[in-house]
Amino acid sequence: MATPKKNYSKLALALHKKLKGKLEIKLKHPLKNKDDWSMMYTPGVAAVASHVAQKPQEAGLYTSKGNSVAVISDGSAVLGLGNIGPIGALPVMEGKAAILKSMANIDSWPIVLGTQDVDEIVAAIKAIAPTFGAINLEDFSAPRCFEIEDRLKKELSIPVMHDDQHGTAIVVLAGLINAYKLTKRSFKDSKIVIQGAGAAGVAIAKLIKLHAPDVCITMLDSKGIIWTGRKDIVLYKKQLIKEGVILAEEGGDLLKALAAADVLVGVSGPGSISRHHIEQMSKDAIVFALANPVPEIYPEDAKRAGALVVASGRSDFPNQVNNSLVFPGIFRGALDNKINNITDEMKLNAAKKLAALVKTPTANEIIPHISNPKLVKTIASAVK
Amino acid sequence: MATPKKNYSKLALALHKKLKGKLEIKLKHPLKNKDDWSMMYTPGVAAVASHVAQKPQEAGLYTSKGNSVAVISDGSAVLGLGNIGPIGALPVMEGKAAILKSMANIDSWPIVLGTQDVDEIVAAIKAIAPTFGAINLEDFSAPRCFEIEDRLKKELSIPVMHDDQHGTAIVVLAGLINAYKLTKRSFKDSKIVIQGAGAAGVAIAKLIKLHAPDVCITMLDSKGIIWTGRKDIVLYKKQLIKEGVILAEEGGDLLKALAAADVLVGVSGPGSISRHHIEQMSKDAIVFALANPVPEIYPEDAKRAGALVVASGRSDFPNQVNNSLVFPGIFRGALDNKINNITDEMKLNAAKKLAALVKTPTANEIIPHISNPKLVKTIASAVK
Repeated sequence: MATPKKNYSKLALALHKKLKGKLEIKLKHPLKNKDDWSMMYTPGVAAVASHVAQKPQEAGLYTSKGNSVAVISDGSAVLGLGNIGPIGALPVMEGKAAILKSMANIDSWPIVLGTQDVDEIVAAIKAIAPTFGAINLEDFSAPRCFEIEDRLKKELSIPVMHDDQHGTAIVVLAGLINAYKLTKRSFKDSKIVIQGAGAAGVAIAKLIKLHAPDVCITMLDSKGIIWTGRKDIVLYKKQLIKEGVILAEEGGDLLKALAAADVLVGVSGPGSISRHHIEQMSKDAIVFALANPVPEIYPEDAKRAGALVVASGRSDFPNQVNNSLVFPGIFRGALDNKINNITDEMKLNAAKKLAALVKTPTANEIIPHISNPKLVKTIASAVK
Repeated sequence: MATPKKNYSKLALALHKKLKGKLEIKLKHPLKNKDDWSMMYTPGVAAVASHVAQKPQEAGLYTSKGNSVAVISDGSAVLGLGNIGPIGALPVMEGKAAILKSMANIDSWPIVLGTQDVDEIVAAIKAIAPTFGAINLEDFSAPRCFEIEDRLKKELSIPVMHDDQHGTAIVVLAGLINAYKLTKRSFKDSKIVIQGAGAAGVAIAKLIKLHAPDVCITMLDSKGIIWTGRKDIVLYKKQLIKEGVILAEEGGDLLKALAAADVLVGVSGPGSISRHHIEQMSKDAIVFALANPVPEIYPEDAKRAGALVVASGRSDFPNQVNNSLVFPGIFRGALDNKINNITDEMKLNAAKKLAALVKTPTANEIIPHISNPKLVKTIASAVK
């Protein structure tokens, strides 16, 4: 199996140890002389406190609330590492906060939670919500993530988004739009296989179906194709069938699902797709192997097996189909346009605008590079 | 009544509006090229996440946890403004975070809570605690603050301190030590009046009594002297009597309490002390009028009424007896020395060391100035 050249694990450990974390606080105005103290703190701050207490709608004008997003995780589904808990999640959440600052100039502090109980999570996030302009949920496992997001969206007046669902769905749809363009495919009746039925898989299926209602989506979990004949499937998967999001007339394994498939989207786990799998697909197949850090199949292997367009979630391969391309722009737009709900329409628009940033898609460029200076602005413009 | 010269309210409002809050996030390492992304985020961050998940005791070495303090408030007792809620508290908490960074290089993000229910507050803080190296509770009203702090201290393994209690008590005791030295008083049998029986008043009384068990403390709440004859006093005030912290043999008002008193510590509300009150006190009286931003009596007025040593909580008068002199050093020491409990002994030591920073106390310098470069290091050295 091909592996990346640099040992980023070792490099990352060394860098993190040197830095002791990736984030620090910076004052926008120094605390140097008596006047600084008297304006930044007492007595002057009392006037600011009174003002925003009386006019809470102006809090964003006088405090950090207007430009701040909480990046929150319970560590139950971190990258491809699984349920490693809050401390394990912290370096990843710091990374998300660093991305929000670096790409979208959003001030964000990571919050990791010492509970995985849905009621406790919802209560804690509701309690701290007045601090922030928006809530970015990260790496909550399915099916809890659906209930947590649904309840918070209903109960809070600031925007809430579970990035693993919607950030991922937006970037995948954008990538597919360009991959279809490149391979001269039409969404109509095309066959898409989604391997993985967690947060990302579900949201990807829903958003693709919203974009192209006549597409055929087959979804697999760890036990194979999700279909009506299975007795072991949980409620949210049943709903996907009921709502017609996925095809569910026949069971089988990944090999069977991939027969003549146009697209394979892997959102499952490391190394779960072989070259033999890819060989079942149609000519010029599209393979997004998005497990992180180790993808379901490495891009080189997928290409050797016949795929034309391959993508991963990683920074060190071409075609990085990663929600980090999306969530900074989503939250930039949400804060700037003072919206309090991120709708499906906004997500669809964001995907289309993201795709359109690549004028002429090629096999190595179906999605804009993370360094594209128009990225955040373009996506933000869809969130209004 | 004398008032300060500059209109800091107006200046503070203008500055806050210009800045849109006082804090922003800064990356310790840029996200510029592919290597940066691969180390700060995926794939490299996975190794860091796995490492700290397996060795949570090393989280402080690889993440911001080791140098971060949450500044948390429910906005129930903000400055002298009272129960103005979480949004009103936010500018003040940002100020506290700014002070932590500026003075002690601690990275801190303010968290304001949308609930004032003790159980919900404790649950929310416990939930977010894995994120932080320590918890600084700010501006929680009495008596809830006592239960919240007690429960969190018991249930969390990171240090928790309610600054309004202990930060204030430490700086008041330090100021008194030097004021006594200056006025050649002995703590033994000296008469101290504490006006205000909230978080600060209670902690001040306890710490003074711990330092000098033979001192006589009289405490007043809004209904006068707290004493055994009153039927209306709540449990925590009864405990002060029971534990012998305060004298409680006779009732009366502030005027009566101040007869021949050596010290008046005001931790109540704006303008609640008149010159006539001060005139009842002993010669060369010591008056700390700590309500913020408008003190119980302005320093000039207290002096005109015969006080020799006067202090306020404000930055724009001499003798700023404010917990901002203390909490940065306390948390610096707690993080550096990896302690998980801030004890009474540490608080006493901190007060003594803080006092000792002023070699020769004068009426205008009983406490180090906030700009004293030894401040944080000195206090931190007491917390181990």
